[in-house]
Amino acid sequence: MTSLLIDHIGSLVTNDPGLGEGPLGVIEDAAVVVQDGVVVWAGPRGGTPEGAARDRFDAGGRAVIPGFVDSHAHLVFAGDRAREFEARMSGRPYTAGGIRTTVAATRAATDEGLRRNVRRLVAEALRSGTTTVECKSGYGLTIQDEERGLRLAAEHTPEVTYLGAHVVPPEYAGNPDAYVDLVRGPMLDACAPHARWIDVFCERGAFDGDQTRAILEAGARRGLVPRVHAGQLGPGPGVAVAVELGAASADHVTHLTDADVDALASGSTVATLLPGAEFSTRSPYPDARRLLDAGVTVALAADCNPGSSYTTNIPFCVALAVRDMNMTPAEAVWAATKGGARALRRTDVGHLAPGARADLVLLDAPSYIHLAYRPGVPLVARVWKDGSPQP
Amino acid sequence: MTSLLIDHIGSLVTNDPGLGEGPLGVIEDAAVVVQDGVVVWAGPRGGTPEGAARDRFDAGGRAVIPGFVDSHAHLVFAGDRAREFEARMSGRPYTAGGIRTTVAATRAATDEGLRRNVRRLVAEALRSGTTTVECKSGYGLTIQDEERGLRLAAEHTPEVTYLGAHVVPPEYAGNPDAYVDLVRGPMLDACAPHARWIDVFCERGAFDGDQTRAILEAGARRGLVPRVHAGQLGPGPGVAVAVELGAASADHVTHLTDADVDALASGSTVATLLPGAEFSTRSPYPDARRLLDAGVTVALAADCNPGSSYTTNIPFCVALAVRDMNMTPAEAVWAATKGGARALRRTDVGHLAPGARADLVLLDAPSYIHLAYRPGVPLVARVWKDGSPQP
Ligand SMILES: [Zn+2]
Ligand SMILES: [Zn+2]
Repeated sequence: MTSLLIDHIGSLVTNDPGLGEGPLGVIEDAAVVVQDGVVVWAGPRGGTPEGAARDRFDAGGRAVIPGFVDSHAHLVFAGDRAREFEARMSGRPYTAGGIRTTVAATRAATDEGLRRNVRRLVAEALRSGTTTVECKSGYGLTIQDEERGLRLAAEHTPEVTYLGAHVVPPEYAGNPDAYVDLVRGPMLDACAPHARWIDVFCERGAFDGDQTRAILEAGARRGLVPRVHAGQLGPGPGVAVAVELGAASADHVTHLTDADVDALASGSTVATLLPGAEFSTRSPYPDARRLLDAGVTVALAADCNPGSSYTTNIPFCVALAVRDMNMTPAEAVWAATKGGARALRRTDVGHLAPGARADLVLLDAPSYIHLAYRPGVPLVARVWKDGSPQP
Repeated sequence: MTSLLIDHIGSLVTNDPGLGEGPLGVIEDAAVVVQDGVVVWAGPRGGTPEGAARDRFDAGGRAVIPGFVDSHAHLVFAGDRAREFEARMSGRPYTAGGIRTTVAATRAATDEGLRRNVRRLVAEALRSGTTTVECKSGYGLTIQDEERGLRLAAEHTPEVTYLGAHVVPPEYAGNPDAYVDLVRGPMLDACAPHARWIDVFCERGAFDGDQTRAILEAGARRGLVPRVHAGQLGPGPGVAVAVELGAASADHVTHLTDADVDALASGSTVATLLPGAEFSTRSPYPDARRLLDAGVTVALAADCNPGSSYTTNIPFCVALAVRDMNMTPAEAVWAATKGGARALRRTDVGHLAPGARADLVLLDAPSYIHLAYRPGVPLVARVWKDGSPQP
């Protein structure tokens, strides 16, 4: 049995209102006891059970928060699109770009090349405090390449999402319905054993509402739980379909009708906001306040991908959420931890109540507020995953 | 004699158009030779002089850029204002806040406490690639406390700025002109020996145009070169006075008249943009394009201070400059290196031509574009200052 006392925590975010102050359940001058990778006790230092742990780590009065839960990432790809980004941000045309560039590079890559990329980005995310990350396929778009993407993703995370319906690949440009049949037929047969989730990019130019519904229903019959890319570029049927099918999450939701907000508020589908995408495409941000004020559960994720949001950094997304989406620091930190866990239907991560996985982040700062107050500064001093310090 | 070959650089920014492509003087597949802390050669790898150096560092195809030159920072202070930040970003009133909170905490701090704070922030900046940093007084506002602030700043950088005219302290609230007399009289006498620059916060509620001119002229007579906080919160006389007096830089310049832009374009005063301040106060960003298109020299700095921009992170400022100020990645990187050097009238930093100080930054990325393309991700893999690798 391994056991660890994390002592002398200046400010601890538990995300359990029963344990501390406010919605984040903050405890000042706190300690946490970990056994065999699980939190067994969290509370004010004075109450630490005697002889609770073999090892002791002194947090030196700094803040500890739950590891970030990043519920939206596209990590299985090859190449980058720096020149396309540069052209876009410089107002220059760039015709060769787009998702298809990445599809071609990904298909051409070796397993080992793709594996290296996933590993690099998962490690980078971990260094900035992300202890749980979802990972989608979607740059293969053939049976073999999608199945390969999912297998490689599964080497790094259990939160694997089949996104055959990312975009219609060039070879089906003239017959998108045939591609939909592939995605919900033989491609699904090959992919379902490797995934937990199924996702569709429901957007003008990608998949419409009926196609989205058909693909998600086929996935659900194979035990995959739906999630949807909805309303990124314009309003559309994505949110309605997501709520109708009981999707775990509707992601982006930058463009929403009143009916969409009502549907999210009355259903169990989480709204996952991805401000990194708006940042890197110079687009208007989603209206987080409208969602929060309507009672919608909001998650925050990085949407790491080489086209529209090439960041793994959740503290950066927290700072954007506060600055540009009018979330409070507490709402943003909750959305990036417990909110992400809700979006992945996980109760073992995103909080630090007894029984939770011991995924913790030590900040080089006295409080979680500093994640937004000190934007851009790498504040993550130490990460534990399942109770083990990460390199 | 120490000598180092930095070899196998995928993409080298020299900031010398004579050495490479474009205004950044980019050389692909490059190498740099350093001797005794100075660049002695930079060029395409194939041309590396034989036996050029005793030691060799393999950059592994990654990008190297000049160290950032951060020409605007307030690092001599005690305490933080996280609660004030949280209240502001949450739309809650917070009456006890403001610059005077920091003045009180700074006056009450020990030398060693203040020294620790400067050291911590200079080290943090260095880890994110800042090899030259300016540092202002301005939280003391008594003869003794301003002089102490400058002495402590001078322990860490030669770019020390006397900012007695930051705000009128509470004890002079009823008689601001007496404070101006102090700042340009006995306080200047005490401070001038410890500083290179003199700065005034020219703004409604702080110091007006005549007060600014009087203080800067007194400083100039003591050999201090002027720089001005101008047009941060609203239009005002700051830019006009700065250009009139040949100031090295007018900083913030968020609010500009056409006459201000003309004056900057025809004079030698650099416009230093500080988007961290707009980020952390949710204010509109300065119009960088208007300045660039008028031919004004633009610098980018972090404005690290505990009230309105508690970041030391220049890559973050570069990403903001591209996203929110419509600068191209190349313009932003130039402004954060060579532009900062111009704002500090330094020719030995901000570029990597032979003769320059060997202040270099290795990025964990193939090009400088990634500083904006991968926002929030800590990409600085290694920093050399005066040719020495930093911890
Ligand atoms: Zn996505
Ligand atoms: Zn300032």
